[in-house]
Amino acid sequence: MSEFDGLEVGFDIPALPGMGEGEIATPCLVLDLDALERNIAKLGDYVRGHGMHLRVHGKMHKSVDVARLQMEIGGARGVCCQKVSEAEVFARGGIPDILVSNEVRDAQMIARLAALPKLGSSVSVCVDDLANVTELSEAAARAGTELGVLVEVDCGGGRCGVVSPGAAVEIAQAVLAAPGLRFEGVQAYHGSAQHVEEWAARRGALEAAIAIARSVVEALAAAGIDCPVVTGGGTGSYPFETGSGLYTELQCGSYAFMDADYGRIRGANGARLDAGEWENALFVLASVMSHVKPGQAVVDAGLKAMTFESGLPRVFGREDVAYVGPSDEHGVVDDPEGALSVGDRLRLVPGHCDPTCNLHDWYVGLRGGVVECVWPVSARGKLW
Amino acid sequence: MSEFDGLEVGFDIPALPGMGEGEIATPCLVLDLDALERNIAKLGDYVRGHGMHLRVHGKMHKSVDVARLQMEIGGARGVCCQKVSEAEVFARGGIPDILVSNEVRDAQMIARLAALPKLGSSVSVCVDDLANVTELSEAAARAGTELGVLVEVDCGGGRCGVVSPGAAVEIAQAVLAAPGLRFEGVQAYHGSAQHVEEWAARRGALEAAIAIARSVVEALAAAGIDCPVVTGGGTGSYPFETGSGLYTELQCGSYAFMDADYGRIRGANGARLDAGEWENALFVLASVMSHVKPGQAVVDAGLKAMTFESGLPRVFGREDVAYVGPSDEHGVVDDPEGALSVGDRLRLVPGHCDPTCNLHDWYVGLRGGVVECVWPVSARGKLW
Repeated sequence: MSEFDGLEVGFDIPALPGMGEGEIATPCLVLDLDALERNIAKLGDYVRGHGMHLRVHGKMHKSVDVARLQMEIGGARGVCCQKVSEAEVFARGGIPDILVSNEVRDAQMIARLAALPKLGSSVSVCVDDLANVTELSEAAARAGTELGVLVEVDCGGGRCGVVSPGAAVEIAQAVLAAPGLRFEGVQAYHGSAQHVEEWAARRGALEAAIAIARSVVEALAAAGIDCPVVTGGGTGSYPFETGSGLYTELQCGSYAFMDADYGRIRGANGARLDAGEWENALFVLASVMSHVKPGQAVVDAGLKAMTFESGLPRVFGREDVAYVGPSDEHGVVDDPEGALSVGDRLRLVPGHCDPTCNLHDWYVGLRGGVVECVWPVSARGKLW
Repeated sequence: MSEFDGLEVGFDIPALPGMGEGEIATPCLVLDLDALERNIAKLGDYVRGHGMHLRVHGKMHKSVDVARLQMEIGGARGVCCQKVSEAEVFARGGIPDILVSNEVRDAQMIARLAALPKLGSSVSVCVDDLANVTELSEAAARAGTELGVLVEVDCGGGRCGVVSPGAAVEIAQAVLAAPGLRFEGVQAYHGSAQHVEEWAARRGALEAAIAIARSVVEALAAAGIDCPVVTGGGTGSYPFETGSGLYTELQCGSYAFMDADYGRIRGANGARLDAGEWENALFVLASVMSHVKPGQAVVDAGLKAMTFESGLPRVFGREDVAYVGPSDEHGVVDDPEGALSVGDRLRLVPGHCDPTCNLHDWYVGLRGGVVECVWPVSARGKLW
């Protein structure tokens, strides 16, 4: 028995290097490594050309391997992520600069966050409440470490973040006065605006967001507070933040993999983002498992292999078949011409990459149709 | 450093026995063990009182511990599940009787299925295609094992399954003639009908499904084929299958945990299923992480802590607040009276229990507000 035998151990991988795409256990996440590397290099060129910093969003892929690639060939200074337990994975994976782009309020999680710089990474976190400054400072003092702090600004997302420049100034002053904390600046990220389909409408939402961020930075300056970092921006918006003259750092995530939702939004030229701007590098590989009825195939990938809150997956490279409905472990595929047979494989572009990646334990990296690598989804399920 | 230290090892659990509910890392699945045991015992009493067999659906909870409880106090003969990799987990966990209630067509997965009886469990599988009989038989012969086979009938779900009694008879005859296979009977399960809200409409859908199943069993009898097992039925339908005089075995799953979607469907008396019939035993425990705006709290549980294809979660035991919208790692909660503060915890009843459980690594079992056990979601992510 080998260590890869699924019967003997609790360890089960979908493929081994050298296998063909047809041998991968399905459903499974597969990466087109050439497309992935081109996407990563392209944004890297952009940020270097525009004098921006890039902090890739690790919450999207949850992969130390992808993050390393984004640093090596994609100009990234490090990652951001949303949870302390994710940050721990990236720190253990050697990522040198990590921002928890979110508030951390639980005492145990604050203690874990404060311990994290001991692993050698620079660690920062967002704050939207004055009380949190004391909590973080005391934890850093207990741990003997230093945490970077950014004030999170609600710039239209309607989620976390301060809603007045005055509150931001008050928090920044508290951070500057607090032992163990390092004031870094402002995070202003507008998540839902990333997905507005038309360019002009998206630009409108982002101009409003940037104006809010600017009012905060100006209030900080008026209070004599330097704001070295203004961070935010995603795949749907980064040209606006870059052009603002205000932002110093982008937090793009989905550009590396793409998904069906980002694919359908429009760039400045009116074309879909997946028509040349970014390539589909991520797929849920699915197999036809039943084809009893004419015109309908059933594949082995449903609600546990991808998520559907951003719509149905697109069948990559095929116009003759369409994924029309999921159940827990099945997907019904319209096959009007009877083109599919049991065992056939489809590359599905999931509606929403972030929560879809979080369902899987492994990425299978393909180059030229051959498995080159099998990477763990290192921070899969790291929820707290 | 202890082995539980999240910084030092890749192992991270949300709670330890003896902790209070307020100490559990969130977001996290929690089980009300008293409610769970009452649900399990109640269905056990029902199946024993009606002379039915119960094969609980392990795809719902993916937990060896819950399956064992369902056998010990709930009258279950074993489990069904949807994937070979799930069946491996249940077999390794000592569950003696396992049905893969689905088709298995990939050669590697068929080989793994055929090897599984070596672990000591009785293992069965569904078939809807004659060609699959040969594949299974050859694999069982190679492994030196025996596999049970049920013909799956599409009784209205529109997914897998034969669509004529003749096809069922043909497959049954092939199974009876095939070395290494044991013909067990018929599976006729109508998934989507489980969720029809009104009792009378649900009864109509189930009567049609049962009529289809009956036509298949009668065709088998006419061909001289004994059909010892007719299996199917779920939390929304099991009284109909039980009353049919045709079914021998129920496949209920969600009754043990319940969810918001099953909660809103109506029983024979017109009352919601969560009003007395089944108790909510499963919750996503979430914490308030930001409360900057009057009237709105933000909790730490979004699309990666539960799934939303069956609607929003319900906040258990509270009418004053409502979960109104998710993003990847956040949930926006309407809090019109300002009842919530940072750190407060909410028990969320997820819309759909099956894919929600599959997002988590652990169940934290609570009794009287104290953590009694921490169970792994043993088959979490077992997709193939």
